[in-house]
Amino acid sequence: MRGSLLSKPKGFEKPIGVKDYLPHAVSKLRRIERDVLECMRRWGYEQIMTPTMEYYDTVGVASATSDQKLFKLLNQRGTTIVLRSEMTSPIARVAASLLKDRPFPLRLSYHANVFRAFEEEAGRDAEFFQTGVELIGDPSSEADAEVIALAIASLQAAGVPSFKMAVGHVGFLNGLFGEALPGRDDEQMSLKERLLQRDYVGYRETLRRLALDDAVRAELEGILRLRGGAEACEQALQLGGSAGAREAVRQLLEVWDALGAYGLQEHVMIDLTMIGDFSYYTGMTFEGYAEQLGFPVCSGGRYDNLLAQFGRPAAATGFALKTTRILDVARKEEPEQAGRTLVVYAREQRRDALLEAERLRADGLAVTTQAMDADSPEWPELQARAQRTESFVFRGVEYDSLLVYGVGKGEKA
Amino acid sequence: MRGSLLSKPKGFEKPIGVKDYLPHAVSKLRRIERDVLECMRRWGYEQIMTPTMEYYDTVGVASATSDQKLFKLLNQRGTTIVLRSEMTSPIARVAASLLKDRPFPLRLSYHANVFRAFEEEAGRDAEFFQTGVELIGDPSSEADAEVIALAIASLQAAGVPSFKMAVGHVGFLNGLFGEALPGRDDEQMSLKERLLQRDYVGYRETLRRLALDDAVRAELEGILRLRGGAEACEQALQLGGSAGAREAVRQLLEVWDALGAYGLQEHVMIDLTMIGDFSYYTGMTFEGYAEQLGFPVCSGGRYDNLLAQFGRPAAATGFALKTTRILDVARKEEPEQAGRTLVVYAREQRRDALLEAERLRADGLAVTTQAMDADSPEWPELQARAQRTESFVFRGVEYDSLLVYGVGKGEKA
Repeated sequence: MRGSLLSKPKGFEKPIGVKDYLPHAVSKLRRIERDVLECMRRWGYEQIMTPTMEYYDTVGVASATSDQKLFKLLNQRGTTIVLRSEMTSPIARVAASLLKDRPFPLRLSYHANVFRAFEEEAGRDAEFFQTGVELIGDPSSEADAEVIALAIASLQAAGVPSFKMAVGHVGFLNGLFGEALPGRDDEQMSLKERLLQRDYVGYRETLRRLALDDAVRAELEGILRLRGGAEACEQALQLGGSAGAREAVRQLLEVWDALGAYGLQEHVMIDLTMIGDFSYYTGMTFEGYAEQLGFPVCSGGRYDNLLAQFGRPAAATGFALKTTRILDVARKEEPEQAGRTLVVYAREQRRDALLEAERLRADGLAVTTQAMDADSPEWPELQARAQRTESFVFRGVEYDSLLVYGVGKGEKA
Repeated sequence: MRGSLLSKPKGFEKPIGVKDYLPHAVSKLRRIERDVLECMRRWGYEQIMTPTMEYYDTVGVASATSDQKLFKLLNQRGTTIVLRSEMTSPIARVAASLLKDRPFPLRLSYHANVFRAFEEEAGRDAEFFQTGVELIGDPSSEADAEVIALAIASLQAAGVPSFKMAVGHVGFLNGLFGEALPGRDDEQMSLKERLLQRDYVGYRETLRRLALDDAVRAELEGILRLRGGAEACEQALQLGGSAGAREAVRQLLEVWDALGAYGLQEHVMIDLTMIGDFSYYTGMTFEGYAEQLGFPVCSGGRYDNLLAQFGRPAAATGFALKTTRILDVARKEEPEQAGRTLVVYAREQRRDALLEAERLRADGLAVTTQAMDADSPEWPELQARAQRTESFVFRGVEYDSLLVYGVGKGEKA
C-alpha cells in the first residue's frame, strides 16, 4: 500500500512545500524586499543576517514554533541543528552575544527565508520569506506604537493596496479568564485556542458547555464585541476584570493614542479577542489583514521574556511581514526595465559588436550578444528586422531592439 | 573523554562554521550582491530562485559536491533531503522542468546561500553565499568566452581591485594522461588529484615514483610550464598528445581569441595544469584569483553532461562568485549613507515631532524617534547639543543631526 512512498523522486521533482521563483516573480519579490528594507532603514533600523542553521537547544527551544514544525538534522558531533523557523530568536541571540556591549534600544531589521515542517497534506509552505524588525530594550507603549506604525509603512512600501491592522493584548484575556475561571487552566486554554484560531462559533459553543454563572458567561461572550477604536477599550474597562486586564487595556489605549499622533488610526482596529501566540507574546500583539486574503500578511507583538533566555533580559517588540504572501497581493507598479537589446554578430565583426554591447551596458541596458555563423539562414530576416523598431522574440526571449553586425558589411545594420 | 561533547550548547552559541553578519558587514554584502546582480542583468541574464531544500536523489546526486559534504535530513515521508550545496544542479532541474518549453540558450543568474558539511576542524564555512550565472544550450567557445568575460565584469562590479583569471580545459590533461598512461587509471587519478590541489611538488614526486619512459616523464613534467597567454597553447600543441588533447587546446585558443575581442586578455592566464572538478566539468574550466588571497574568488567552466541527468540534454557553461570571500577583499567605496537623524520629543510635542520625522524619511534620511519623559535629566544636554552640528553618539548609535522637541517650548530646538 505504501509502495509508492518508497520510489525515488523523479529528476524534475522538488520537495513538497518548497518553490522555484522564475524571473518575473523574482523581480517582484526583490522589488518588495528592497522597498521594505529601505523603509525600515529610514526608520533607523539596521539590517543584520544570521545563519540558516541554529542549535536546537538554544534558538530552536526559544522560538515560538512548536517542536514538530521544526526541521531538524544532526551535525557531525551528533548535536541537533534546526533550520531557523523565524528570526526573532536568532536576533535575540545576537543581541545578547555579539551586540552585548551595544546599549539599548537596539533597532534591527532583517529579510530572511524561514522553515516550517508542516504536514504535507496541509499544502503550506515549508520555506518562505519574512521581512521584519525587532526593537529591543524599550518597554514603552511608544515603542509598541512605533513598530505598528512601521509595519503599516512597510505594507505601504511593499505595495499592499488595502489592509487593516488588528491590535490586541494578551494581558487582557489572561486577566479576564484568570478572574472568571480561576484554577481552571484547561478550560482557559481551550477558550484561548478557539480565539487564536479566530473560531468564534467554537468559542461560543465551548462557553456553553462550561459550568459557569450566567453573568460570567455573558461577560465572556461579550468580549467578542470588543472590536473597533478606543470605544472597544472603554467597553472593556466596563467589563471589570482583574488588575492585569485593566492594565492591558490602559496600555492599548496608550498605543492607540500614539498611533493617532502618527495619523494612522484609520488603518488600525482594536481587537481584544486577538491573542497572538500566547506562549510567546507578553503584551500588545497585532496582525495585518489585506483585503480579500484570509490569512495575515504580517504579525507582531511584545515579547518581554525572550531575551532573558539568552542571558540579557530586556523588553522587546517587533513584527514580521510574510513577504512571500505579499507577493500575491502587492499591486505597486514595477519599475520600467531598461530596454533589452540583442546584438547579433558575424565573427568578422565581433570586436565592434562586443564594444557596442559594452557601451550599451554602461548606459544600463540589458544586452544579449549572439554570434552567428556566416552561412546561417537567419541573416536576411535579422537584417530586415533591424530596420524596424517594435519588440520581437528571438530564441524565446523578448527584446526591445536589435543591432546586427552582419557578414562582410563593415558596418552595423 | 568525550563528555564535553554531550553538554548542551550555551545560549549564545551558534553551530560551527556559520556566521552572523552585523549591520556594517550586511551593508557591504548587500552592496556587492546588488552591483553584481545588476552587472549580470546588463549582460542579459535573468535572476531565478530555487529552494534551500532539494531531494538527495535528484539534485543531491547530480551536484558536484561529494556525498559526505552534503547536509542531509529526512522529511516526514522518510525521503532524504539535502541543503543545496551549489546552484548549478537546481538550475539544471528548473531548466528541464518549469522552463522546458523555453528554447535555448537560457541565460540565468542567482544569488544564494549554499551549504557544505566540512570537518569541523577545517575551519571552513558551512554556509556561504554564491552569486553566479548559467548559460545553458550553447556549446560554442563564444559562450565560454562570454561567461569568463562576465565573471571578470562581475569581480570588477564587486570591487575586487586586482585579480587574474586562470583558464584551462579538462580535455587536455585527460587526453595527455590517457595517451601517456594508458589503462593506468589509478595513477592518472593520483596525478590529477595533485594538480587539483595545485600541489606541484607532490605532482613531481608522484611522477618520479611511477614507472615511465624518461621522455614521457619529461613530457608530463613539462605541462607545469604551460601557463601564460596563447604561447602556452602553442607549446602544448608541440607536446603532441592525443586528438582529444589537441582539440581541447584548439578550443582554448578560440576562447583566448574571443577574450581578445572583449579586450580582456590582460586579466586572463591560460593554465593547462588547471583541471577544476574533473568529475563534473567537461571542457573549459576557470578560476579567479584575487591578489593576496590563496583561494579562488570565483570558479566556473563547461558542464555538458549535467542537463541530461534532468532529462533535457544540453551543453552548458557558467560560474559562481564566492561572494562571502569577496567581502574581505572588495575595496569599492561604499555609497555615502544619507545622514542619520535623531528626533527626541516630549509627549506634548509628539505629533509635531512624528510629522517632522515623516517628512525627513520621505527625503531619504534615516530617522530614529525617541520619546523622553518630561523630568528626564538628559534634556539640558540634548538642548545644548541641538545647537551644534557635529555627529554624536546617543545610546550606542551614531547620528549626524539632532532635532529636539522639548517640554513646553511649543517649537523645535
